Amino acid sequence: MSDRRALLPDWVVPVCPENVVLDNHAVIVAGERIEAILPADQLEQKAPDVPIQRLAGCALIPGLINVHAHSAMALMRGLADDLPLMRWLEDHIWPAEQRWVGTEFVRDGSELAMAEMLAGGTTCFNDSYFFPDVTAATAAQVGMRAVVGLPVISLPTAWASTEDEYFSRGLEVHQALLSEPLVSTAFAPHAPYTVSDQAFERIRELAEEMDVPVHLHLLEAAGEIEGSKQRYGKHPLDRLDALGLLNNRLIAVHMTQLSESDMDRVARHGIHVAHCPASNLKLASGLCPVAGLDRRGVNVGIGTDGAASNNTLDMFAEMRLAALLAKGVSGDPEALPAARALSMATINPARALQLDDRVGSIEVGKQADLVAVRLDRLETWPVHHVLSQLVYACSRHQVETVWVAGQTVFDQGRLTHLDIDQLRAKAQEWQRRLKH
Amino acid sequence: MSDRRALLPDWVVPVCPENVVLDNHAVIVAGERIEAILPADQLEQKAPDVPIQRLAGCALIPGLINVHAHSAMALMRGLADDLPLMRWLEDHIWPAEQRWVGTEFVRDGSELAMAEMLAGGTTCFNDSYFFPDVTAATAAQVGMRAVVGLPVISLPTAWASTEDEYFSRGLEVHQALLSEPLVSTAFAPHAPYTVSDQAFERIRELAEEMDVPVHLHLLEAAGEIEGSKQRYGKHPLDRLDALGLLNNRLIAVHMTQLSESDMDRVARHGIHVAHCPASNLKLASGLCPVAGLDRRGVNVGIGTDGAASNNTLDMFAEMRLAALLAKGVSGDPEALPAARALSMATINPARALQLDDRVGSIEVGKQADLVAVRLDRLETWPVHHVLSQLVYACSRHQVETVWVAGQTVFDQGRLTHLDIDQLRAKAQEWQRRLKH
Repeated sequence: MSDRRALLPDWVVPVCPENVVLDNHAVIVAGERIEAILPADQLEQKAPDVPIQRLAGCALIPGLINVHAHSAMALMRGLADDLPLMRWLEDHIWPAEQRWVGTEFVRDGSELAMAEMLAGGTTCFNDSYFFPDVTAATAAQVGMRAVVGLPVISLPTAWASTEDEYFSRGLEVHQALLSEPLVSTAFAPHAPYTVSDQAFERIRELAEEMDVPVHLHLLEAAGEIEGSKQRYGKHPLDRLDALGLLNNRLIAVHMTQLSESDMDRVARHGIHVAHCPASNLKLASGLCPVAGLDRRGVNVGIGTDGAASNNTLDMFAEMRLAALLAKGVSGDPEALPAARALSMATINPARALQLDDRVGSIEVGKQADLVAVRLDRLETWPVHHVLSQLVYACSRHQVETVWVAGQTVFDQGRLTHLDIDQLRAKAQEWQRRLKH
Repeated sequence: MSDRRALLPDWVVPVCPENVVLDNHAVIVAGERIEAILPADQLEQKAPDVPIQRLAGCALIPGLINVHAHSAMALMRGLADDLPLMRWLEDHIWPAEQRWVGTEFVRDGSELAMAEMLAGGTTCFNDSYFFPDVTAATAAQVGMRAVVGLPVISLPTAWASTEDEYFSRGLEVHQALLSEPLVSTAFAPHAPYTVSDQAFERIRELAEEMDVPVHLHLLEAAGEIEGSKQRYGKHPLDRLDALGLLNNRLIAVHMTQLSESDMDRVARHGIHVAHCPASNLKLASGLCPVAGLDRRGVNVGIGTDGAASNNTLDMFAEMRLAALLAKGVSGDPEALPAARALSMATINPARALQLDDRVGSIEVGKQADLVAVRLDRLETWPVHHVLSQLVYACSRHQVETVWVAGQTVFDQGRLTHLDIDQLRAKAQEWQRRLKH
């Protein structure tokens, strides 16, 4: 059968179970799925006709999943840095968005972002931006898995003018994507301070009906709590609780302002946390207490945020930063060990996105979203421990081959579904436009 | 004249003055020195016979300087992680060192480290390890600039048995290196808790006489202060002050336990601080208040520490981490802007090492320690701001060509003075040995 092949790396890191490295094992891929994982010496007997793809010096890991992105903002990478949040937004990002955001911007920006993510071993991302239909179409075209957010915000934008219109356009996008195998949707209300009670209630109802996650910036910076108390007489968590939003559909992004009892509450309600360490540091928003959340069993995933506040979409860098920062912030060098950090970049985001039956680990029956990482490189010699090298020493430039649903999307420096020269030309054109 | 060439990148980032990017400029290198920096359109007239090396899509920056390394420990990269400092040292690092450290370990380990550093745009490093003669010889051989520490520690090691022997062996190394153009020395007393008053006094005298820096781990973790008070009745800074060590020869490494008045004191004495953000986070040692030191005019340089606690020797990653962490820790998003972070990886370490008359910036008369960084890559499109891309988005894998003293040491993936297959074989051999 022509669609079956055995991938034979030096090591398989299945992620589930956590902290396991299989030496001399092969992963058999049949079409879009993982059919078997077996010791290499059983290949001849159990899969005699299956062609073998040797991945010498490589570890095979599940595709990384970026649990919080604004992919189109790749075009604004480094447009403005080293500024306080509000000056950054009001003087730079928002004016640029107001002038330029539309289908062309979103298509070119999300294409650039997907190129960067795929080349760096990220096979799936959870997006929050305008024109999710365009992002979805681009993802389908380049063969990348995505969850596109249906934006809701009480401000008019090029995408929609009223809350009602955000809902109607969002529902249309959702409907149109029901048959798309790689792309699904989530509600993406912007933040408590930009979404009305009515809209939140509608999101709660619809999310349940449609069975989709709710992707929300929450407790990103200190001012948010005071603002909510003044406007609603309540802490944002109390307000969302009263509106029925605190449940296991919620992907709460940032969460840098958590008390111990807030953490208990997050755990009790099964809320997923999207941790964006680089962005939180860069904007000096605050620090997410990842070690404390992890200790309570909260499902924490790692995300890059947009390239305008990171300034990369590099999940290897983000994973390393998360692991280092958790130790430094908690004062506990045993916090967030390598294996857990890898889970937070794979199976945990899959759980938050309700995709863990399909991706996030190398398990029989799951989709073949896989990454071969070359550890046989100067930067990761010697390989005393595979997981340690993957998290603490490896960079995305050691990614050798990437598959999404069994399809090769990146191989030895080449993106198979994208034209790099065209990407460059578009980026240069946007560089020129955004200057003015 | 055959040893002159004009390097013509898209951008020259001289570092001195800070925050400057020169478009369309050429750097003329004559032998080991920078002879001129001039607008590209004056090349024909002012340097008509000089061959031009076009570096399209590249920024030319000064070679990065790693102000704190234990290079030979590259062989212990990832040997043990996610452990408290003392268990990490006592159960893993020290036993391995006791068994294996000698000339072969130091040669192979520092060679691997230098390969990694050069390929990543680091042209000079400040080392603290045993057998500095071996590290020095290796640096000279691979054409890398280095300052090797003359170790002093009140414990017997394979290098020396008594404090006296540390001094006599160290002085021999210093003497032997006086005529070596690329390598110089510093005293490298291990830490206040492992060096006697007598040894510190001798270091102060000799360092002045020999005109070399003093490279010391200082205030790395909280326990150090209490320990010093119990043993010496003094805070480590008071003890070192009384011994005459607090002056502008001192490179104080880590400095994670600083009060506001300690910072004033550091500034007053002109002490240089070596900031190692990844290592401090990973071992949960504490946080160096870089923004506060920088505000006081303290000369702060960035270092990787050893690969056993980082686990890379990646100055691009370290620079980015320093810039991000300074904002997060200080709560000020304007702290450590990109240009300052780049200074902390170039001219500031040069100052600490007393090498700023020779390296650390692209200035006429300085040594041609240069790095061409390809910004024309997916990961750094679009290039709205060169400095931002270099610090926040760029990775060491975008390094295209590296020169030390005018010699090409790395070019398009190839280390010109090192045999990569031999490096691999040695790393694999040490992987096997260190397992037991």
